[in-house]
Amino acid sequence: GNISLLSAAITLIESANSRHRELAEQIIEECLPHSGKSIRLGITGVPGVGKSTFIESFGTFLTTQERKVAVLAIDPSSQKSGGSILGDKTRMEDLSTNKNAYVRPSPAKDSLGGVARNTRETIILCEAAGYNTILIETVGVGQSETTVSNLVDFFLLLMLAGAGDELQGIKRGIVEMADILAVNKADGGQIDAAKNARREYRNALHLMPLKESGVNPKVLICSAMEQTGIAEIWKLILINQQLTRKNKFFYKKRKEQSLFWLHEQIGNGLKDFFYKNEKIKKRLEEIEKEVLEGRRNSFNAADELLNMFLDKK
Amino acid sequence: GNISLLSAAITLIESANSRHRELAEQIIEECLPHSGKSIRLGITGVPGVGKSTFIESFGTFLTTQERKVAVLAIDPSSQKSGGSILGDKTRMEDLSTNKNAYVRPSPAKDSLGGVARNTRETIILCEAAGYNTILIETVGVGQSETTVSNLVDFFLLLMLAGAGDELQGIKRGIVEMADILAVNKADGGQIDAAKNARREYRNALHLMPLKESGVNPKVLICSAMEQTGIAEIWKLILINQQLTRKNKFFYKKRKEQSLFWLHEQIGNGLKDFFYKNEKIKKRLEEIEKEVLEGRRNSFNAADELLNMFLDKK
Repeated sequence: GNISLLSAAITLIESANSRHRELAEQIIEECLPHSGKSIRLGITGVPGVGKSTFIESFGTFLTTQERKVAVLAIDPSSQKSGGSILGDKTRMEDLSTNKNAYVRPSPAKDSLGGVARNTRETIILCEAAGYNTILIETVGVGQSETTVSNLVDFFLLLMLAGAGDELQGIKRGIVEMADILAVNKADGGQIDAAKNARREYRNALHLMPLKESGVNPKVLICSAMEQTGIAEIWKLILINQQLTRKNKFFYKKRKEQSLFWLHEQIGNGLKDFFYKNEKIKKRLEEIEKEVLEGRRNSFNAADELLNMFLDKK
Repeated sequence: GNISLLSAAITLIESANSRHRELAEQIIEECLPHSGKSIRLGITGVPGVGKSTFIESFGTFLTTQERKVAVLAIDPSSQKSGGSILGDKTRMEDLSTNKNAYVRPSPAKDSLGGVARNTRETIILCEAAGYNTILIETVGVGQSETTVSNLVDFFLLLMLAGAGDELQGIKRGIVEMADILAVNKADGGQIDAAKNARREYRNALHLMPLKESGVNPKVLICSAMEQTGIAEIWKLILINQQLTRKNKFFYKKRKEQSLFWLHEQIGNGLKDFFYKNEKIKKRLEEIEKEVLEGRRNSFNAADELLNMFLDKK
């Protein structure tokens, strides 16, 4: 429960220094037996949907339910733009000063893979430090959601009403990952529009195939600002957890995630090693040109590079 | 245009014999400049939707439009069950005896990657042999559709009306790949149900994000048996082709596919080499157990295996 110690450990994880990494690995291994006993929830939605305000409201509510809340973030753009979601802690003023909450900005990393590793390891540390509710915020623009869905138990998608017929720039596939869709900003003159949106999304989801979890996605409305609908979302998550623990999907998914990251890291590591090879780099440039100009068969070209790489060793 | 020669060349591609493969590579390289000038269409749908009858009708119609049609298939289950889609040519009696059509069963391969390579190379040969319309049939159950979508220009999803609210066992994501959804078996007493399904799918797609091609998916009804709606589907495909050639997406997608398979084959090749390594195999078994039991961090475990693999070389 010691926030300074937790922060220091996470900083070790994020460090590029190899001695720091070694120490971090030790800490993680020792934390492992004390981890896993939390609910991990991904939260996404396009900019403007009110994610920060929602997490502030939702997180604060959770602390009144005697939950200890850690808020993490995955923002692949942060290393480019310099500005990171959650980087500005003033965005979650109440939560970041709440003694039962811990808010950590998105780590700055070269790759989404690096961010994923950091986040997964940070989850372990947070859980070992006694946080039993992990919220992972991400921007609703694609790749990062797929990553987050492999880190969390449930996925909450925040939506806006009346933002046009399309799913407001939300990438294909993200809707299908969601366990709960919440139409936010259902307040003031917006309540009817939110209810309409809820009905439309319900109809659309109705046509979707059954989720592997056996629990169909739910749609509801909320207002992070007026703090309505917040308790209902939490209730749905608890029910979802109960059902998926009962049908074992909850455990199955976590085990699959462990293996997923093992093999993902192997695949990424192999590719890193391959693509950083100077000889490969040079030949690849020529070969890509040949392939693009239709002078070379992709598979045969790949074989040449693979042979080059494997012979060299 | 010589079907015996084409068949012989495809058999070389499918051969496991390395001298055959070498010869096959030469043939492919020589065919490359003559390939690419076709429309490549993926066709999917769950068993029972009438894929064979549809392809029979659609393919025969295409030959009346002075198109030369090659029908290929991707069926990852064929090597397990022994029975392959299209394996039984009697299923497409008219088409397989039509002099402007060529029907080839799904190759028996160990992996979907192997099937994909075969198929992509077979497309090149068929195009060089003068076939300007390539139809690739696949079963509507997931992974194989993602593969096919990286092989074709357009994707047609066959549906049934009134098969329940869910998308009839069609996996999440497949609907999102489709350029055209056709409700088949719109004949006899089924026409009204088909029209209802069309309306529902149109509404559902309406809520989906815009496709990267810039051309939204269309929903229509057809009857493969009574040969209605067939010409309309072809008309839509021609319009789609015209629009995407104009906005350059057609060419962009083909170039992306070439690079996709280059890097896909590199990734698969690296993994093959890694997972076939005896030392790795043995240690991986122990490590997977540790990871599953929560005694080991996935990333750290992957690092150990990667170091083992890279040191060895």
